[in-house]
Amino acid sequence: MTNAIDARHTQVAEAPVSLGAPTAIERIARFVSSVDPADMDDLTIRAAARAFADTFAVSVGARRDPLTGVLRTWTAGEGGAGTIWAGVVPAGCTEERAAHINAAMAHVLDFDDASTVMRGHPSAVLFPAIVAVGESSKATGREVSAAYSVGFEVWMKIARAVSTEHYKLGWHATATLGTIAAAAAVSNLLRLSETEVARALGIAVSQASGTRQAFGTMAKSYQVGAAAAAGLQAARLAQAGLTSSPDALDAAEAGFLALYCVPGARELLDAHLATLGEAPGELLARGVEVKRFPLCYATHRAIALALELREEHSLNAEDIVRVEVETNAHGMEPLIHHRPMTGLEAKFSMEFAVAAALIDGAVRLRSFDTEDVQRPEIQALLRRVVGHEGPGDLNPRWTTMTIQTRDGAVITRTMHDLKGSAQQPLDDTELLAKVVDCYQYAGLEADDGRRFATTCLDWADVDIRELVRSSGVA
Amino acid sequence: MTNAIDARHTQVAEAPVSLGAPTAIERIARFVSSVDPADMDDLTIRAAARAFADTFAVSVGARRDPLTGVLRTWTAGEGGAGTIWAGVVPAGCTEERAAHINAAMAHVLDFDDASTVMRGHPSAVLFPAIVAVGESSKATGREVSAAYSVGFEVWMKIARAVSTEHYKLGWHATATLGTIAAAAAVSNLLRLSETEVARALGIAVSQASGTRQAFGTMAKSYQVGAAAAAGLQAARLAQAGLTSSPDALDAAEAGFLALYCVPGARELLDAHLATLGEAPGELLARGVEVKRFPLCYATHRAIALALELREEHSLNAEDIVRVEVETNAHGMEPLIHHRPMTGLEAKFSMEFAVAAALIDGAVRLRSFDTEDVQRPEIQALLRRVVGHEGPGDLNPRWTTMTIQTRDGAVITRTMHDLKGSAQQPLDDTELLAKVVDCYQYAGLEADDGRRFATTCLDWADVDIRELVRSSGVA
Repeated sequence: MTNAIDARHTQVAEAPVSLGAPTAIERIARFVSSVDPADMDDLTIRAAARAFADTFAVSVGARRDPLTGVLRTWTAGEGGAGTIWAGVVPAGCTEERAAHINAAMAHVLDFDDASTVMRGHPSAVLFPAIVAVGESSKATGREVSAAYSVGFEVWMKIARAVSTEHYKLGWHATATLGTIAAAAAVSNLLRLSETEVARALGIAVSQASGTRQAFGTMAKSYQVGAAAAAGLQAARLAQAGLTSSPDALDAAEAGFLALYCVPGARELLDAHLATLGEAPGELLARGVEVKRFPLCYATHRAIALALELREEHSLNAEDIVRVEVETNAHGMEPLIHHRPMTGLEAKFSMEFAVAAALIDGAVRLRSFDTEDVQRPEIQALLRRVVGHEGPGDLNPRWTTMTIQTRDGAVITRTMHDLKGSAQQPLDDTELLAKVVDCYQYAGLEADDGRRFATTCLDWADVDIRELVRSSGVA
Repeated sequence: MTNAIDARHTQVAEAPVSLGAPTAIERIARFVSSVDPADMDDLTIRAAARAFADTFAVSVGARRDPLTGVLRTWTAGEGGAGTIWAGVVPAGCTEERAAHINAAMAHVLDFDDASTVMRGHPSAVLFPAIVAVGESSKATGREVSAAYSVGFEVWMKIARAVSTEHYKLGWHATATLGTIAAAAAVSNLLRLSETEVARALGIAVSQASGTRQAFGTMAKSYQVGAAAAAGLQAARLAQAGLTSSPDALDAAEAGFLALYCVPGARELLDAHLATLGEAPGELLARGVEVKRFPLCYATHRAIALALELREEHSLNAEDIVRVEVETNAHGMEPLIHHRPMTGLEAKFSMEFAVAAALIDGAVRLRSFDTEDVQRPEIQALLRRVVGHEGPGDLNPRWTTMTIQTRDGAVITRTMHDLKGSAQQPLDDTELLAKVVDCYQYAGLEADDGRRFATTCLDWADVDIRELVRSSGVA
């Protein structure tokens, strides 16, 4: 079959002109190249600003993670203009490496925002890619917001068509779809032409990779970083004139949908692209899910309940005889550690989460330091917490908490909606508290975190390079 | 299913210790870390040297390809220690970028070596990755040879298990398998430990990508470059301490074999790994297939026949009434241009190939310049050439040429084996002629090409950095 290989080797300077209906890539490229930062509305700019403040902060908060040392060694002596948010590489590095490292660091704590539709983590990929380029082009918050909303919109449409089955197959959807979305976002920031955007998307497909087998290793965060870097690289190469196939997504045999997804994906993507760019856009309509607490999502309703009840009833740990937590079906599955003794175990422990919330009135990054996990009062209280799953389905999710106190009182409350979604966002105080937690955990000044977040939330005309460099992290 | 995602997010500093039988990655890592350059035999060193001379030359020969301008723009102003063989970026760049660009340039003319077993192009990926690192570590030809033979060996075993079906699915096997093989090769050069090599291989799987949909665009060569860069990156990250899954290749759900290959691949790979590293090794036993002529392989037997018959019978074009070429079944399929008027068309034209060989006594890079293709004597003779396929199967391949001359003579000859394989390699004169052709086509001195090739063929103790920098290309 060598002949068949050779016939395809032909290099042409121009991408083939497609006849007939536009391909998926061509439809996306038309949208990406049409979005003008000048047309951004205030709500979108603010949604993007909030997401960036959160993403930047969790990256800063990862400064003490073991991944830091690995990435510092990797990039030692490289030099360049890119700023590493977590301060891992003080000397700077190339923009591609900055995107890679910032994205990996933003994801490593698993404290970055997520999207259920995407089965993935949008901001950890998109912002590092956009900002790495924005630093050299002196982009404003408005321009970064436009690029982010474009990347988010494209990602969501593809995700609505394929993410559930794609993820189930074994792909790490954040890495694969994120590469394509990052290319779209950076293409918008660079104001590439429609033809160039199409090429960038095709090049991004060339780099779509990452499997769930990496989960549980540093390679997972690495893959998130690689997606940001590859998306950026695709846009830069398209800008330089590299050609690619406009059929790279939906070609019947060797297209992305055929190779990475299940049958029927083409028809689904075709349908979802019909609403691409429709107001108010996916970022405002669906948005990101922001994590308030730095541990497994399955504990979050229980923590929120514990904080509420502690506050309202002025509960003290020694007064608590027993805490019962009931969740929706499958709600306890990831929470496999019942007597955690390390931070890593505590991240997957309902008992620890409830005990820490009731004793400290907060669950912060430092709650997972081993010495904090092993505190006698925490270890005592978590032994009085029991969790179990209720009947029914996985969705909709809920948690009921029942607290018995020494004086015989029984307090019960159920929570359905979880704060942090686009529909019920963290308020500015809660977001600020998270930023400050990340700064402090990294050994930085709380005031620097507050100043960064305050500037960021009003970033329409702020130079992104100045914002990053005055953030107090370097 | 957010919970299920979260449960997998856990980061651990060490790769899981596997119990029971070693995984495919662990078996490969043991081999890669065990190969010592000091044990390299002269035949292997010479085979690697010949392959490098060829690879370097075809990269140099691509200097006039449109891809050059794209890559120069892409990397403008980056700076660094990496040398670009084709002289595209005189100022140098990072080692990762050097690997990327050298690999893309080595492949863009489709004049680089190939392997039928691999369904791909080994040297264009392996050497750029190895040499980019070797430049900074001042590796000798012996060390480069060891790394190359290791990468080749690993690639072949995986390819024997999966390449045919993997390629058929739509994957660009050079890019996907090449990433893994390049990681193995660079890991050997860096003398990584067994654990580190295993991590490098897992990281490489995280980056395995590239589909055949890119064929016919610049993205094809880009993907080859990306494979070299990603393999290098994987080895460097493993060296820096990044962890990955030792099950990344053969995990049942989200492993490479499950996601990129067809059922049964695990068993096949298991079987082929049983001979991993067995003397004399794949490089000597099977080797690379070197292209003598810079166009579609399907024409090569016909060109070789035409050159032989021209020489033996002192044929002149005007004496030739008719040339009939018969090939094995499917042998004409890629040769779709019967009246070529451009170099690109001529690359897939049996008529042109035979006419150029008979008139010029050679088929060189410059034969495909448009003005050369359009020469009246070429256009006249190619109209007297007819090709057709004979009966039977695709394999084994053969070509029969029948030439009728003006004086009524009929000359017929059949060729089966094609020169350029490991079994029937080009002799040094033919290899040197190819190097010189590439140099001259790039506007460089033939003497520089000869000097480079001569030094290269005896490279055991030569510093690879000196070899590259004294090659006359910069």
